[in-house]
Amino acid sequence: MLQRLTVVGVGLLGGSVAKAARAEGLAREVIGVGRDLARLDGARQDGTLDRITTDLADGVRGADLVVLAGPVATIERQLDAVAAAAGGETVVTDVGSTKAGIVAAAARVARTRPFAFVGSHPMAGSEKSGYADARADLFRGATVVVTPAETTEVRVVKSVSAFWESLGARLVTMDAAAHDRAVAAISHLPHLVACALVDAVLRFEPAALGLAARGFRDTTRIAAGDPVMWRDVFLANRDAILGALDALDAAVAELRGEIEGRDGAALESALARIAVARRSVS
Amino acid sequence: MLQRLTVVGVGLLGGSVAKAARAEGLAREVIGVGRDLARLDGARQDGTLDRITTDLADGVRGADLVVLAGPVATIERQLDAVAAAAGGETVVTDVGSTKAGIVAAAARVARTRPFAFVGSHPMAGSEKSGYADARADLFRGATVVVTPAETTEVRVVKSVSAFWESLGARLVTMDAAAHDRAVAAISHLPHLVACALVDAVLRFEPAALGLAARGFRDTTRIAAGDPVMWRDVFLANRDAILGALDALDAAVAELRGEIEGRDGAALESALARIAVARRSVS
Repeated sequence: MLQRLTVVGVGLLGGSVAKAARAEGLAREVIGVGRDLARLDGARQDGTLDRITTDLADGVRGADLVVLAGPVATIERQLDAVAAAAGGETVVTDVGSTKAGIVAAAARVARTRPFAFVGSHPMAGSEKSGYADARADLFRGATVVVTPAETTEVRVVKSVSAFWESLGARLVTMDAAAHDRAVAAISHLPHLVACALVDAVLRFEPAALGLAARGFRDTTRIAAGDPVMWRDVFLANRDAILGALDALDAAVAELRGEIEGRDGAALESALARIAVARRSVS
Repeated sequence: MLQRLTVVGVGLLGGSVAKAARAEGLAREVIGVGRDLARLDGARQDGTLDRITTDLADGVRGADLVVLAGPVATIERQLDAVAAAAGGETVVTDVGSTKAGIVAAAARVARTRPFAFVGSHPMAGSEKSGYADARADLFRGATVVVTPAETTEVRVVKSVSAFWESLGARLVTMDAAAHDRAVAAISHLPHLVACALVDAVLRFEPAALGLAARGFRDTTRIAAGDPVMWRDVFLANRDAILGALDALDAAVAELRGEIEGRDGAALESALARIAVARRSVS
């Protein structure tokens, strides 16, 4: 039981953290920090937050746990002020979907003052991004990656891991660089590909959108996601994404070559190999 | 009310046609034609089919409506025998997902004997392909494209259109070439992209499959589809697909260039334009 949980950025993920902590009775007091009191007020009125503030230091001070849930670039900018207000006792984590930049920034801060930080990435969410879609069960069954650095204290890793587990998540621990490469492949590349696919239809045959069936809708659903959030993700994880894009180009080129050369045997064998791999993903 | 409906190929689509016609009371007798009596027998035992046969001519003869529901290459091969058995009165359609090859083959047949054929493409289905997943409501709310040629008689178009509409489908009429270009964009390219995306993860970071969340699963769901069916689709619609792949390459290259050059403004504007287009698809 936490005395005080502070969520900075009360959108889909931050709002879901607050709702889930409330639903599980994990915190006596839940504080929400945001830029706009009027937008935060709904979460106070519905009982998810006990107190709201636009003052980051005021919201963070005295909390047992702080969850930074703004965009990746915002989290990086907030770390120094959060560390200053939090002191060494308050445990701090974040929900940013790329970790190397945030973890490096946190390590820089920790060289100047005590900072009990470990990065997290809950692999949950959707094409929605606002508090209106926040859900108490968003993390139930989801994977959360926790990314300790060499200098992270074990007690910090344990307390953040326990928090996510008490929201129903499955924990995976890896370092920030390995995390960023893995999510480039399994999360950022799919988003980029979904966007490119929508754009390809617009370039090739826009009228075909009128024939969209379930296949197209599922394959491109995430392309409706928030452009600002995804711009930040793509730039924050640039190097790993460029590597994943090389792999995509090679995969497309192989299939194209088999179609172009009417090589039915090679095409069937590639499609069969891929279908087996896809079916292995639950 | 048809006296006799014959479905050739009782898999997901053919089985669903038979089940839907049965559920709507559209045919007094429903006959199933397949290569393997043992595999057809389930559909007879569950009451979907009245009679089953492996003899194409026997199954087709005397039907009011024949629906060819095998793979595209099989349909093309069957047309001459079907026309010979059907005569000029029996109306024939198919469910193949590419139409130029089938419509051209049907036109060749029709120059030698009477053949009341028009192509159809129900934009329904899933990554499944067998009778076990056939459903009486598969076509409810689905789009069915009907592709008359210059020489197709209006009565044939009308009777096939009325059949699909009575199964709950929304009808779109276009010529076979326009259809093939549209489905290259909205159906075949998404399938190819989903396959390439799975393959890219296997090439770049196979361990990342363990972190797959909803975004990856939705984006790649169709990559689990039947390799033989999709091999045939890709080869049958080769030229339009190669054109759509050029558009994909251009779309990927634009996004890659913006990420590589750290051009946040251009990247955000591209993602915003794409998100708006995606949200316009219901």
